[in-house]
Order: sequence, then C-alpha cells, then structure tokens
Amino acid sequence: MAAGAVRISLLIALFALSFSFSLGYDPSPLEDICVADKNSQACKNPNQVTADDFYFPGFDKCGNTSNKLGSAVNLVNVEKLPGLNTLGISMARIDYAPSSTAVGGALAPPAPPLDPPLYAPYGLNPPHIHPRASEILVVLEGSLYVGFVTTDNKLFTKVLNKGDSFVFPIGMVHFQYNYGTTNAVAFAGLSSQNPGTIRVANALFGSKPPISDDVLTKTFMVDKKTVNYIQTQFQ
Amino acid sequence: MAAGAVRISLLIALFALSFSFSLGYDPSPLEDICVADKNSQACKNPNQVTADDFYFPGFDKCGNTSNKLGSAVNLVNVEKLPGLNTLGISMARIDYAPSSTAVGGALAPPAPPLDPPLYAPYGLNPPHIHPRASEILVVLEGSLYVGFVTTDNKLFTKVLNKGDSFVFPIGMVHFQYNYGTTNAVAFAGLSSQNPGTIRVANALFGSKPPISDDVLTKTFMVDKKTVNYIQTQFQ
Amino acid sequence: MAAGAVRISLLIALFALSFSFSLGYDPSPLEDICVADKNSQACKNPNQVTADDFYFPGFDKCGNTSNKLGSAVNLVNVEKLPGLNTLGISMARIDYAPSSTAVGGALAPPAPPLDPPLYAPYGLNPPHIHPRASEILVVLEGSLYVGFVTTDNKLFTKVLNKGDSFVFPIGMVHFQYNYGTTNAVAFAGLSSQNPGTIRVANALFGSKPPISDDVLTKTFMVDKKTVNYIQTQFQ
Amino acid sequence: MAAGAVRISLLIALFALSFSFSLGYDPSPLEDICVADKNSQACKNPNQVTADDFYFPGFDKCGNTSNKLGSAVNLVNVEKLPGLNTLGISMARIDYAPSSTAVGGALAPPAPPLDPPLYAPYGLNPPHIHPRASEILVVLEGSLYVGFVTTDNKLFTKVLNKGDSFVFPIGMVHFQYNYGTTNAVAFAGLSSQNPGTIRVANALFGSKPPISDDVLTKTFMVDKKTVNYIQTQFQ
Amino acid sequence: MAAGAVRISLLIALFALSFSFSLGYDPSPLEDICVADKNSQACKNPNQVTADDFYFPGFDKCGNTSNKLGSAVNLVNVEKLPGLNTLGISMARIDYAPSSTAVGGALAPPAPPLDPPLYAPYGLNPPHIHPRASEILVVLEGSLYVGFVTTDNKLFTKVLNKGDSFVFPIGMVHFQYNYGTTNAVAFAGLSSQNPGTIRVANALFGSKPPISDDVLTKTFMVDKKTVNYIQTQFQ
Amino acid sequence: MAAGAVRISLLIALFALSFSFSLGYDPSPLEDICVADKNSQACKNPNQVTADDFYFPGFDKCGNTSNKLGSAVNLVNVEKLPGLNTLGISMARIDYAPSSTAVGGALAPPAPPLDPPLYAPYGLNPPHIHPRASEILVVLEGSLYVGFVTTDNKLFTKVLNKGDSFVFPIGMVHFQYNYGTTNAVAFAGLSSQNPGTIRVANALFGSKPPISDDVLTKTFMVDKKTVNYIQTQFQ
Repeated sequence: MAAGAVRISLLIALFALSFSFSLGYDPSPLEDICVADKNSQACKNPNQVTADDFYFPGFDKCGNTSNKLGSAVNLVNVEKLPGLNTLGISMARIDYAPSSTAVGGALAPPAPPLDPPLYAPYGLNPPHIHPRASEILVVLEGSLYVGFVTTDNKLFTKVLNKGDSFVFPIGMVHFQYNYGTTNAVAFAGLSSQNPGTIRVANALFGSKPPISDDVLTKTFMVDKKTVNYIQTQFQ
Repeated sequence: MAAGAVRISLLIALFALSFSFSLGYDPSPLEDICVADKNSQACKNPNQVTADDFYFPGFDKCGNTSNKLGSAVNLVNVEKLPGLNTLGISMARIDYAPSSTAVGGALAPPAPPLDPPLYAPYGLNPPHIHPRASEILVVLEGSLYVGFVTTDNKLFTKVLNKGDSFVFPIGMVHFQYNYGTTNAVAFAGLSSQNPGTIRVANALFGSKPPISDDVLTKTFMVDKKTVNYIQTQFQ
Repeated sequence: MAAGAVRISLLIALFALSFSFSLGYDPSPLEDICVADKNSQACKNPNQVTADDFYFPGFDKCGNTSNKLGSAVNLVNVEKLPGLNTLGISMARIDYAPSSTAVGGALAPPAPPLDPPLYAPYGLNPPHIHPRASEILVVLEGSLYVGFVTTDNKLFTKVLNKGDSFVFPIGMVHFQYNYGTTNAVAFAGLSSQNPGTIRVANALFGSKPPISDDVLTKTFMVDKKTVNYIQTQFQ
Repeated sequence: MAAGAVRISLLIALFALSFSFSLGYDPSPLEDICVADKNSQACKNPNQVTADDFYFPGFDKCGNTSNKLGSAVNLVNVEKLPGLNTLGISMARIDYAPSSTAVGGALAPPAPPLDPPLYAPYGLNPPHIHPRASEILVVLEGSLYVGFVTTDNKLFTKVLNKGDSFVFPIGMVHFQYNYGTTNAVAFAGLSSQNPGTIRVANALFGSKPPISDDVLTKTFMVDKKTVNYIQTQFQ
Repeated sequence: MAAGAVRISLLIALFALSFSFSLGYDPSPLEDICVADKNSQACKNPNQVTADDFYFPGFDKCGNTSNKLGSAVNLVNVEKLPGLNTLGISMARIDYAPSSTAVGGALAPPAPPLDPPLYAPYGLNPPHIHPRASEILVVLEGSLYVGFVTTDNKLFTKVLNKGDSFVFPIGMVHFQYNYGTTNAVAFAGLSSQNPGTIRVANALFGSKPPISDDVLTKTFMVDKKTVNYIQTQFQ
Repeated sequence: MAAGAVRISLLIALFALSFSFSLGYDPSPLEDICVADKNSQACKNPNQVTADDFYFPGFDKCGNTSNKLGSAVNLVNVEKLPGLNTLGISMARIDYAPSSTAVGGALAPPAPPLDPPLYAPYGLNPPHIHPRASEILVVLEGSLYVGFVTTDNKLFTKVLNKGDSFVFPIGMVHFQYNYGTTNAVAFAGLSSQNPGTIRVANALFGSKPPISDDVLTKTFMVDKKTVNYIQTQFQ
C-alpha cells in the first residue's frame, strides 16, 4: 500500500511501540512465588526471598477508632505484604467503637429494633466499594448491622453476632455498623492482592480537586450550600 | 476417621452437593458463539442461531432526556442482545439535554470557565460505577465535561468536544456533564457483556429498602432532615 | 539424585532463570490505573499521570478511503491511547467509500438484491480476524452488508442501516461492505486494549517474506501464475 | 422515575431476564473434575464418573491422507474426550503424505532449497487459525516446513526434523508442509479444551452460504471467474 | 470433501454436540450475584435471594480436636455458603490442640528450639495443598510453626504468634503445627469459592481404591510392610 | 482527616509504592508474541525475534532412565523455549525403563492382573502435582498403568497401551508406571508455559531444609526412624 521506505520506517515505529505496555493482573500465577520488588517492578530474585516476605504481624492490635466514623481498617495488601503478589488474596482487621468520639458520648443500648435500626450513632465502616475484590467478613467480637446494595438498588442487610460470617460481592456498595454497646471486631478475607477501596462519600465530596458543584448539586438534588457543607467534612 | 456407613453417606452427600454451583463469567469463550437462551440458562441450539441473534437496531434514536438529570442512557448489553453472551463487550448511546427540564429553563451559554465549571445545570450522567467494565466514550455531538475518581480520591477531568474520546477505568466513579449549549451525544464501548451500573446517589439514597438513617447521617455528616430530603428525590 | 555441588549450581541456574518471563495480559487489573509507559515497559509513575493520558481526539475526522479497498480504519488501541493499558477495551472508526477509486467510477445504486448482493464494487473492510477481541459495530451513516464465518464454515450475514448494531465474535473471520450509494461510517467497540487485526488475504499473499508458492497453490488449488498475480496486489 | 406498577413489572421482567445467560469458558476450574455431560450441559454426576471419561484411544492409527491436501488431523477435544472439560488442554495427531494423491504422482525428493522451498506438492496442513489455543508441535517422523504469520504480516518459518518442536501462538495463521520424501507424523498439544480451527481458504471460499463474489473479488483483487473456480474446489 | 448427505448428517451431529459442555470457573463474575442453586446447577432466581444466602454462623465455635492429628478445620466454601458462588473467596477456622489425644498426654512446653522444632507431638494441620486457592492465615490464639515447600523443594518456615499473619501460595504443600502449650486458633482467607484440599498423606495412603503397593514402595523407597502399616492409619 | 503536609507525604509514599508489583500470569496474551527475555524480565525486542525463539530440538532422544525411579522427564517449558511465554502451553517427553536399575534386575513380565497391579518394580513417574497445568498424555511405546486422586481421595486408574491417551486434571496427584516388559515412551501436553512439578515424596522428605520430624511422624503416623530412613532416600 505504501512505498518501501515509508513502510519500513512504519514497521520500525510499530516495533518500537509494540514491545511495551501492560503490567498488573490477578488470575493464576506463572510461578510458585513472585514476591513484589519495590525497586524494579519485577519479581524479587528468588535467591533472596525469605519466609519474612510472606509474613505480617500486628493483627492482634486494636485499631484507633477515635475518629469521626468510630472505626479503623487495617488492610494488609501487597503493599504491606509483598509475598501476596500474584496470589489473589488479602486480609483486613476492622475495629468499631461502641460510640463515636466525634459525634457524642456513650449512648443507651438500642432496643431490639426491626431492620433497619433507627437511631444510634455507633462506629461505622461507611458505604464503600472494593473494585477488585469480593469480601467475606467474620465477627470476632460484638454485633454488626451490615448490608450491600446491588446494581438494581436492592438492599440486603443482616445483623451479625460473634462468630457470624457474611459475604459482600465484588464491586457492590456495602457497609458495617456497630449495632451493640461494646467494641466490635471483625476480620475480612478479600479476593485480590490489592482490592482497592472507594469510600463513596469521600470520592464524591472529598476528591482532589473537588468535583464541580454543578455536578454534585444535580446528582443529589440539593443546593450548593448543602454540597459545600458536606465537602468541608471531607477536607 | 469415621465409621464406614457414616463415611459413605457423607461421600454421597458430598457428591450430591459437588455437582452444582457457579455460572456466569467473562474471559475467553470456549466456543465460537454461545447465544444466550433465556429459557434454559444455556447456549441456544446452534441449529437455531441466526444473524438476528447478533443484531440490535435503534442506536440512531435520540434518547428522552426530559427527566431530572436531563440525560438518557441506552445500554445494549446481553439482556437486549443475546449474541453478546461470552464475548466481553457491549455498547451504549448517551444523550444529554442542553438544559434540564426539571430544574429550570434554558441557560445562557457558560463563559469559558476554568476547570471545573462552576454554575450551569445542564444534562448530567451522574457519578456512577460499572463494576464489571472499563468504558471508552466518544463524543459525536456537543461538548462534555467528564471525570473519574481513583481510590485515593484523585479526580481526573477533561472537557471533550466532537470527535474526542476518553477512557473510564473499570470500577472507578465517573460522570459526564453537558458543557455546551446544544444537545450532546456520545457512544461508549464497555468491556463486558453485562457491565452493571451503580448510580452512587441512587444506591445510597434510593435503595429498596432504604439504608438506615443512622448509617447515612454518619456517612455524610449531615442531619436526618437532609438525609430524608435527599431520599425523597430518589423514590 | 545428583551430587551436592552439581545440584547447587543447578539450583542457582534455575533461580537465575526463574525470575524472568511473561508480560502482557488482559483480564482484571491489579490497580486503578496503569498507564503504559513506552520507555520502561511498566506503569507510568502515578504522580505524572494526567487526564490527557486517557484522552484521544480526532474521531470526527473522515478517514481517507482513496485506496484499493475504498475503506479506512482508525483503531485507537493502547499504542495510541496509553490509558487503555490493562483495561480491556478499545474503539475504532471505520469509513467506507460509496465506490472504490481504484476499481472504477461511481456505480448505479444496486437494486434491492437477495442476500448476498451480487455485483457492486463498493468500499470494503475486507475479511479479517481480531485474535484478541470481540467487536460490536454501530452504523452512524449509510448502509453496510456485514458477515462473519464460524469454525464450521457457517456464514452469518445482515444488511445494517443507520442506527443498527451487530456483533462479531472474537477470533472469527468477518467483513463489512458498503451496501449503499453514499459514504458509510461506523464505530466499533473492541474487547481488548490491543485487539490485533489479521487481514486474511494480506497474511497469506502479502507476508514478509512471502509464504512458499507450493503452500499457496495447494491451499487454494490454483496455479502459481494466479498465486503470483494475487501476491503482486499486496506488495 | 416511573410509576409504581410499571416499575414493579419492569423489575420482574429484569429478574426474569437476569438469571440466565453465559456458559462456556476456559481459565481455572472450580472443581477437581467436571466431566462434560452431553445431555444436560452440566457436569456429569460425580458418582457416575469413571476413569474412561478421561481416556481416549487410537492415537497410534495413521490418518487417511488420501485427499487433496495429503494430510489428516485427528484432534481430540472435549467433544471426543469429555474429561477435558474445564481443563484447558487438548491434543492432536497429524499425518502428512509424502505426495498428494489428488495433484499428481510421487515427486523426486526436493533438492535442499533455501527458505522457502519452491516446488514440491507434498502433504499440507493448510494455513489455519486456532482462535482459542496456542499450539506446540513435535515431529515424530519425517520433516516439516512450518510457519506462522503475525498481525503485522511478518512470516516466521522453520524446517523441522524428527524430534524437533515448534510453537504456534494463539490466533496466528500457521501451516505445516511435508518437506521430505516419506510420511511425516506430528503430535500437537493445544491450550484449550476446544481450540477451534479456521482453515482460512475454506472460511473464505467454502462457507455455507458462500461469501458474496463482490467481497471476494475485491478482497483478493481477482475476477469473478477466478473466485468461482476456487469456490468449486471447496464445495 | 465428503458427499452431501454424509456431510449434512455430520454437521447435525456436530451441532448436537457443540452446544454442551463446560461449567464452573472462578474469575470475574458476569452478574452482581449468582447464588448457587443446588437443584438446578444455575443461579438462584434473584427474586428469591435473601440476605441469608450470604450468611453463615458458627465461627465462634471451637472445633473438635480430639482426633489423631489434634486439629480441626471448618472451611466455609460455596457448598456451605451458596452466596459465595462466582465470588472467588472463602474462609476457614482452624483449631489446634495443645497435645494430641491419640498419641499421648500433655507434654512439657518445648524449650525454645532452632528451626525446625525437634520433638513435640502437638496439634497438626498436616501437609496439604489447595489446588485452587492461595491462603492468608492469621493467628488469633496461641503459637504456630508453619511452612510451605516450593516446586524446587525449598522449605520456608516461620513461627507465628498471636496477631501474626502468613501467606501460603496457591498449589504449594504447606502445614501448620501447634508450637505452644495452649490451644491455638487461626482464621484463613482463601482465594476461591471452592479451594479444594489435598491432604498429601491421605491422597497417597488413604485413597479409595488404594494406590498400588508397587507404586508406593517405589515412591517412598520402603518395603511393602511399611506401606501397608501406613495405609492402615488412613482407613 | 489528616493535616495537609502529612497527607501529602502520605500520598507521595502511596504513589511511590503503588507503581510496582506483580508480574507473571497465564490467560490470553495482549500481543501476538512476547518472547521471554532472560535479561530484562520483559518481552524481547520484536525486531530481534526469530523463528528459533519458537523452536526446540531433541524430543527424539530417549531419556536416561538409569536412576532409582527408572524414569526420565524432559519438560520443555518457557525456561527452555522462550517463545512459549504468554502462550499457556508446554510439552514433555517421558521415558520409562522396563525395570529399575537401582532396585533390581529384569523381572518376569507381570501376569495380567486386576487393577491395581500388585508386584512389579518397573519404571515409575512417581506421584506428583502440576500446580499450574492440566496434562494430556499419549503413549507412543509400551504400556502404562496410570492414575490420579481427587480431593475426596477417590482414585481413578487405567492401563494404557500404545496410542492411548489420558487426562490428568490440574492440581491433582497423579502417576504413571511402566506396566509392560519393554521401554515405554509417552508425550504430554500441559496447559501452562510453566506447569511446575511437585513430586510429593520429595517435597515432604527431600526439602531443603528438611521438614521437622515431628510434623512428618505425625503426618504419616510412623516413628522417627522410619521418617529418617525415608529422608536419606531423597538427599
């Protein structure tokens, strides 16, 4: 189609381009282990791999829940534990205060309500999405009111007590809320070395730079004053 | 470990269970075509497959944007086009009104603003997530202000004009907003036969049943009145 | 099995080898974004990523169809749009001339024929395969006669008009042919960041170096003269 | 957005639709074994699975090469060997006659030519594509001239002798040609339970119904007479 | 190639075959949820899905470790928790007795040994493989000596205390052994809805029917008497 | 949540981390070819790729079976054949001696036994697992007694003769044993570029460093003397 010289330089250009691109997926590994090497974006030299590359301590420590939400998430993903690389799994510990230190003092225990509970400002892991992982959560201490929303806006909720487990499907909005009068503790397994977390309210009202007021007022059908007020909560 | 009889019945139970479960994924197909059969949850009999199974008309029709958001999405996924089954692709047409019929009348064209634009209530495809697809969008008519937010709450935005294309990565919150004085039209390719759409505001404030007020007030740091007002917008 | 020293050096050799290999797949990404970096074969430094990495202009431009086939394909894949990396999607614009400039002048509009049409040398996107992508095509202007062939040599065809869409399954031979008297324009979404295109006739008769005459004569059951004539068309 | 009743029936319709679709992929299995059950499109009841479900005999039989191409392929895929289901592997035996019975009699052995060989009409596995599998081929008897073409139309060829192996990447056009004076035999491993085979010439000239003459004449830049002649070879 | 009638019946046979096969994989789901339906091998009707489909209780219960190994595994996979279907995750609780009830009484606490410990018959989760899952384990109570072996027979071991976590890569032989004087409890996240477990000793010496003595004596280089003795331990 | 400066340095730290990690998977390639480059952990420069990158000789050579097991495996994976990279396939030749040179002299041919055979110390490919590949094996010479064990410890066995093929599902323990009086030869296709091989006995008794005696005695329910004896066989 094109003259020889042009074609040849085109081919060279194509080759120059074609040997680049793409890095970073999940499925089945190609090697037994491929420990993440922070300096080279490659597998760590197998000769230098030790058992410590697969080890992470500290899951016995209670998270600091002295914050607005009264909760703390300790997600151990591939950034913290390089041995997780290519293995499609990670784990988190989540602590929930019995009452938020930011909002108010201790509350009376809630009366046994119908679903959903209607009044108590307890520790909350707020609505969020893991774009790359499903999650199975087990309650070790306390009680949680949990839920997720499917793409047709159907809400599934459950009150969980000690020893109960629950599944949050990949990509769905979900939350956990301390439903009891004591601290709650949960562990979660997640189906990715790097699940990612989108706290929905933060993504909308706390992004850098902020999303346009016009978009937000129209999205939530509220005035700018309300939008701006919420935004100040996420600075 | 267990006595013979018990063991045998255990094995039988295990077998009874083990030949069930799991259906519905994306990657590389196992057959040339596997047209979705609505009655049997299986591939349509190949003898009865015709070209019409791979065909869908109507992308030339302008969507009805006479709604609160001033936008209309026509997503052709595997439910509408059974031939998409196992093929990992779908397509959408999106129309954006020049001004929302619900909020007000025609507006003066916006002065060329800095990013982001600060005032105009034009047609909006509100912040949403496709949990199972990346999206590439091309503008056929008009201008759009588009953006997406990554999991570290970084916002990437761009003003697109006719002929411009833009990519929204899988699982990220993104939106498009009519930035001009005329109708806007865009087409989008999506990397799944069933991308799914989570309109974030709807998931939080319009779910059935609704998410607990306690969760929502704490999530957005607003009072119940505001939460309830927003909820009424999504009934 | 082997003596100590030999075994050790074997292990070292094995290690030296085992931390290499493999790069370049499609499925679900491990990070929100991984913009292709042409210099390093790795993800671009996230600090340097901007919205422009996800942007590509020019889809409003009509392709140059003044060539033998009377068609022009503008495929925007990861080489042109680095932000597509790891996202499993790309997009193309295809233009089809109403009559080929190479073969002859304007033709009378074809009479409404039965399938397939029998005479008109209009713009053709010739039989080709995308080895890594399914394709959904939508017609924006004009009419197209399209088709694909499955591995059991069954042909599925359809005449598409403005607003019609059609699916070509991954790996199948397919084509589009301008069926009308005006220019035709189509957009296509493809389920890979790098679909690849095998124009079948070019692969067989236009490869560098050429495929042996013996293979081609036997493949098509024609004499060398015919093979050589066709080959000259693809130089 | 819509009135209650309409919305409800819409939801019902959506549900009715949403629990269908999709079947048939390759990656990592969910169970140890899932033997294909021809009657139910599901895994065979594990209680009825036997070793024979994983067994296939006859690879010692020489294929019948008394045909135009002088070759015979015995591909054992999941249709023949149900135990291959979900396992991503299959195997083929290929026989190549030393001279084609259709074209002529026995030929003098070819003089040692440069690449490519220029004259002898020996047994040919003609240019074809496996849309779902890479292939590794090993020569057990005889010599083969083999090659594949990448999407930038670059041809890679090699002469293989007894004991030599060669790789054909997934989705690429490739062929094998008997390069010697004796029968040749090869075995091939393929990376799918159902690789699929597109014999390129058959797809273009032997499809049912046939591809339009207009498309084929324009594709190969030949006249209708030539197209029709070739078509008769593939009836 | 073949006569018409034969060819047609061949095609019919091919079609009859080709619309079957394959079910059961892991990667990214095609729908928000696809709850396993034990009766139909398909997704449960979404109208009948409830929160209980995603719920499993009892992880607070200590497993019964009164057995030869002094350990108990409670793996909650898709068979027990149908909502896990298509989600690529599961969870297990593992209990380890401080001393085996089968082998002997309570032992003196081990002196701080070098790696590996040399004497104590405590609770053991014996060497096993999950063919379809990586595992991340966190210790809630007690101490564990854990390890895995790569395909080049390299052993990686670590002593874990309360709050420590460790990763076992998919497909590798691994074990956990109670290293302390108290009960030990661990939770594990696994990257599959159905990880599968191969207890290596059981597979070799406890299969039904048993593996041939000739194979086992040669594999372990021991006499039949030893093989037969071990086999009786796994009846 | 955090003060500006802290937040910024946190973000920088996060970015510094987030652009690393992960390399090495199997599924569908992103490019036609990506030849493994041992020096750079990336695709070889396409300009320097030749047909020899896809070629490996020597499969006609009989393996040296003068060892304890009386067998020899020649697995050609991506380490030996760089062109296999990203293609999900590899191949092996396996030779089986008619009698083990280490254990004894030639044996009388076995009488036709029931399944399983009960006495002959012939060449054995001992129980092993490929953690990343299914295998299809074809017998070219001789007879083999083969088997695999599923995760519920069910054994499937078969006697194979010349021309017979058999499938070993991914991740399952399997073996082949020379069942005849002559040399046996088999070829196997494997569904990964790097299947990996875990010889179960070697992993347990021959690891470096060795697995603790306590673990092994408890696993097999034997005394330390037996464990230590077996260990000496795998030094």
